[in-house]
Amino acid sequence: MSLTLAQKIIKTHLLSGEMTPGSDIGLKIDQTLTQDATGTMAYLEFEAMGVPRVKTERSVAYIDHNTLQTGFENADDHRYIQTVAKKHGIYFSRPGNGICHQVHLERFGIPGKTLIGSDSHTPTGGGIGMLAMGAGGLDVAVAMGSGEYYITMPKMLRINLTGKLSPWVSAKDIILEVLRILSVKGGVGKIVEYGGNGIATLSVPERATITNMGAELGATTSIFPSDEVTLSFLKAQGREKDWVELKPDSDAKYDETIEINLSELKPMAACPHSPDAVKTVDEIGSIKVDQVCIGSCTNSSYRDMMRIASILKGKTVHPDVSLAIAPGSKQVYNMLAQNGALADLISAGARILECACGPCIGMGQSPNSGGISLRTFNRNFEGRSGTADGQIYLVSPETAAASAIYGVLTNPQTLGEEAPIEQPEKFLINDNMIVPPADEKEATDVEVLRGPNIKEVPTTTALPQDITAKALLKVGDNITTDHIMPAGAKILPYRSNIPYLSNFCFGVCDKEFPERCREYGKGIVVGGSNYGQGSSREHAVLVPLYLGIKAVVAKSFARIHCANLANAGILPLVFKNEKDYDGIDQMDELELPDIRATVENGGTVTVKNLTKGTSFEADAVLSDRQRKIVLAGGLLSYIKEQNK
Amino acid sequence: MSLTLAQKIIKTHLLSGEMTPGSDIGLKIDQTLTQDATGTMAYLEFEAMGVPRVKTERSVAYIDHNTLQTGFENADDHRYIQTVAKKHGIYFSRPGNGICHQVHLERFGIPGKTLIGSDSHTPTGGGIGMLAMGAGGLDVAVAMGSGEYYITMPKMLRINLTGKLSPWVSAKDIILEVLRILSVKGGVGKIVEYGGNGIATLSVPERATITNMGAELGATTSIFPSDEVTLSFLKAQGREKDWVELKPDSDAKYDETIEINLSELKPMAACPHSPDAVKTVDEIGSIKVDQVCIGSCTNSSYRDMMRIASILKGKTVHPDVSLAIAPGSKQVYNMLAQNGALADLISAGARILECACGPCIGMGQSPNSGGISLRTFNRNFEGRSGTADGQIYLVSPETAAASAIYGVLTNPQTLGEEAPIEQPEKFLINDNMIVPPADEKEATDVEVLRGPNIKEVPTTTALPQDITAKALLKVGDNITTDHIMPAGAKILPYRSNIPYLSNFCFGVCDKEFPERCREYGKGIVVGGSNYGQGSSREHAVLVPLYLGIKAVVAKSFARIHCANLANAGILPLVFKNEKDYDGIDQMDELELPDIRATVENGGTVTVKNLTKGTSFEADAVLSDRQRKIVLAGGLLSYIKEQNK
Repeated sequence: MSLTLAQKIIKTHLLSGEMTPGSDIGLKIDQTLTQDATGTMAYLEFEAMGVPRVKTERSVAYIDHNTLQTGFENADDHRYIQTVAKKHGIYFSRPGNGICHQVHLERFGIPGKTLIGSDSHTPTGGGIGMLAMGAGGLDVAVAMGSGEYYITMPKMLRINLTGKLSPWVSAKDIILEVLRILSVKGGVGKIVEYGGNGIATLSVPERATITNMGAELGATTSIFPSDEVTLSFLKAQGREKDWVELKPDSDAKYDETIEINLSELKPMAACPHSPDAVKTVDEIGSIKVDQVCIGSCTNSSYRDMMRIASILKGKTVHPDVSLAIAPGSKQVYNMLAQNGALADLISAGARILECACGPCIGMGQSPNSGGISLRTFNRNFEGRSGTADGQIYLVSPETAAASAIYGVLTNPQTLGEEAPIEQPEKFLINDNMIVPPADEKEATDVEVLRGPNIKEVPTTTALPQDITAKALLKVGDNITTDHIMPAGAKILPYRSNIPYLSNFCFGVCDKEFPERCREYGKGIVVGGSNYGQGSSREHAVLVPLYLGIKAVVAKSFARIHCANLANAGILPLVFKNEKDYDGIDQMDELELPDIRATVENGGTVTVKNLTKGTSFEADAVLSDRQRKIVLAGGLLSYIKEQNK
Repeated sequence: MSLTLAQKIIKTHLLSGEMTPGSDIGLKIDQTLTQDATGTMAYLEFEAMGVPRVKTERSVAYIDHNTLQTGFENADDHRYIQTVAKKHGIYFSRPGNGICHQVHLERFGIPGKTLIGSDSHTPTGGGIGMLAMGAGGLDVAVAMGSGEYYITMPKMLRINLTGKLSPWVSAKDIILEVLRILSVKGGVGKIVEYGGNGIATLSVPERATITNMGAELGATTSIFPSDEVTLSFLKAQGREKDWVELKPDSDAKYDETIEINLSELKPMAACPHSPDAVKTVDEIGSIKVDQVCIGSCTNSSYRDMMRIASILKGKTVHPDVSLAIAPGSKQVYNMLAQNGALADLISAGARILECACGPCIGMGQSPNSGGISLRTFNRNFEGRSGTADGQIYLVSPETAAASAIYGVLTNPQTLGEEAPIEQPEKFLINDNMIVPPADEKEATDVEVLRGPNIKEVPTTTALPQDITAKALLKVGDNITTDHIMPAGAKILPYRSNIPYLSNFCFGVCDKEFPERCREYGKGIVVGGSNYGQGSSREHAVLVPLYLGIKAVVAKSFARIHCANLANAGILPLVFKNEKDYDGIDQMDELELPDIRATVENGGTVTVKNLTKGTSFEADAVLSDRQRKIVLAGGLLSYIKEQNK
């Protein structure tokens, strides 16, 4: 049978299940990565599993999110992650070494391998031909401990790239065009595979820009073939031995195909407040700009930085614009410092930030109130910049740099001739900020250092016979993980402290919710459709778990969040009849009689509304494996049972 | 009559008063500077005065403190300062252009001129032969509006430097030695003048390191002569026309003289938690180090950065150490990026922070809990790093860099031969991040932009006939402005929002204080000796004013804080008999009968303790001018009265 590229990788990694869309499959995981905002929790969970050494080929712990360090918490977390990594066979990328996805692409990514990461932009690795997926921290912990990961087999979506980008149009414009066509839900349940003769014109970092922001499609992941372009990148990284050729069978079948002619693309921008609110720069017009930020895992490669340096050289950033630039990795930063490009950026008046995620996750550089900020990042959700009424546009590095000079949104095609940026024959290779783990003998002596901000992972018990609890919160449609567990510079540093975080749970919707949970001790959340969309953060389930939430009844769930609920031992239920949503009021007393038996045999759940004297039916959205996980009281308990 | 260097400058700028120590004198001010943490308030006060254009020769508004921008407040403040500067004749140094003192030294400082700045480290300018003093924001506003500034004529303290520094010993070690000898109170009421044949061996940035940290002596300011060394620095900055020779008369009389033989100095460190807890590095021994931070207005010059680059080149930062480096100015940063030194720093694994004050004022890079951090900064007050139990040592760049490599406190003299660092013949000159003000005609059209975080300046009314209020707080000796109004990453962004800041007033000493003030509406603070030491922040008076504090009774006051109290219209009183301090308990009801008349005629104040049924005597620490200011209800009211 002929296979797509992604199907080929899945096939060689298939542990269980059928490769038919919608089936639950188990995959062997070759590599994992974590960043520090999700990593502390993932390693606490890994420790709870009691596995002495990771079972993956390569696991890497990165520090890139919490680098402002406005309190002791972050430095403590970094130290915890460094020591736990050393003990358990995990490579540690020190703060300052760069953004996980950029560094992983440069130094560790291998075509044809599977990678899961506790960061939703892990699909960046698809740019080098990996099957790379974002996951909750517990799933990453389990993959480290067992080498396994479970997903629903996705459909295959092919995007055929033909032609060649015009001068001043770049990879970011391609993914913005894809988002324009497909929308933020267009990739749900799908793997996006890029092909066509246009891909030969795109370097690995450019491809990675596209697969990175594929996360905004809601896709399981995105992937490019591994070809001569991939080989030349790996060669320049001194890793040609990691190369294998990978491409789909010529007669592979796709569930859907989209054609994009690169020659026709123009500079684009995603308008506030959604990555799919895409227009051409010319359509939007010369709006006045207050801030420009360049960097993030989407656009911080050597190529991107050299491009903006070539634009800014000899110029001055417009007096009304603050231009912040964060190179993506130490490799990139070091090369720019050696070849004079960084001097050009500084000379033009750019504010050079530490090599890290920075403003992309709201860690600093919040724009002025109501300010218009152009960013080369991947998300422009309302408030994510740290400024509630900030107006964020997502653009290419070319558009960003041109606009920084002129003070208004500027089509870079007005800049004149475009200088070519060549991939260097050899990148600067110096892995001195990557600390290898201790060997197995030394590992027993490594002491894991924990700061006072690092609290225990909340757990629950086996699913009881019956559940009776109040509907402590009722919310509407499209609740994001940012609603459930907000991030930002003021909360993100506390990601290893669930008790503290719990004070902010659902704060956007209802500031009294945490207090109500404490009062009643247990509860149920009632949600609308697409509940739990957005980032992969498992804090959006661990914090409700800590607050006593036993079940969420919703019209529908986002995929990763639903898996995270099951992993935490919280029951995800969908209304059989969506209209029953209207029949529940906040604070109604709900009863789930015989729930354990019902979950066990996969039957329909009957929910009694004791307050109203009514009842309705719901389905537990669980695979067979997830049923066992929920019955056991969450994935950690399940694994402990298995290991008995 | 023969004069010291400082006396000569004072003489040519004297507007009123006698040049005898202890007399109140008025000085013509040639230049002012502000930074953004104190600047917003200073410009609000300037606006309140209604003066259209500054009367100084040069006023510069710098952005260097609030550069993390974890919310909209900072960007709003920057925009406010940029527009208010443009309108009123003030140069604006954009964020990213560097630390005020470093940039001012490079581009604006002129030997023999007077400078006041709303930052306690303004004496940095003494390195180039300026009479440069820190002051409250309101004093700076008044100086901008009138060209005048009032101080008490200081005594003259001469420090004679002989000999020549040994290799690996540097300017920081000199000022640490001075602090060891004199303590943090040793400079109170004095100007420190450096002389002797040793000074010819010190470049302007090295001299500036010394005058900068002279602030920690409690001195009014510190100053070096303007000589051939000064000329060569100004030449290299393309400003030789600004040079004048300045030196004390050969028979000038000093109130005190200290001799330091540079040849005998060794690498030193100030131990936690005071800049005068100085020992030699060898005495302290090889303690394990968690973090090293290099930069700040004390040690971020081209010379310092080249020195650390020469140490770190080809090395790797110890795996257990986080090394953060912030160059002091765009000029320095740009030169390092051009000559390869920055590449050496990045290659070694340094985390390069934005060119700004950063961790020195607790804006990021807080160490781990209980962590030992070596810093090239000027203050190591408890908690200032953002980590309550952080152990901060103040060291030279040489000691910092050596320790970063070895992971333990390291005497740099163990590093082998020291490579010479020459002052460049020409610094890189590019003032494109300094925005000149609008000319007088255009200025009327400039709109001043205010964000929602910018609240009104609190004011009070004329001093009443009597004051009766509870002693709402009683504190001990050496209360710093950091105790009264904490800074740090979580509070500093709100410097233009006094109502919000008031929630944190005296939070270090007593979290209930703000609430108590709100309950009682008015109050008196009782303090020990050296009350109000540390920074020049007038927020340490504006916030208590907002909370209803009418008077502070203390054993003694730090100079700038005492002036700030008077400017705010809060009465600063010192016990005639220090033992009376013991007779007051917190919450005692105190009465100051006939206080207006007493202040008016300069008599002794009688304070009745209504709770205890006792009474004691106190003196208002006020010059004649300050008496009028307090009677008027603060400096702003006083000026409005004068302008009527």
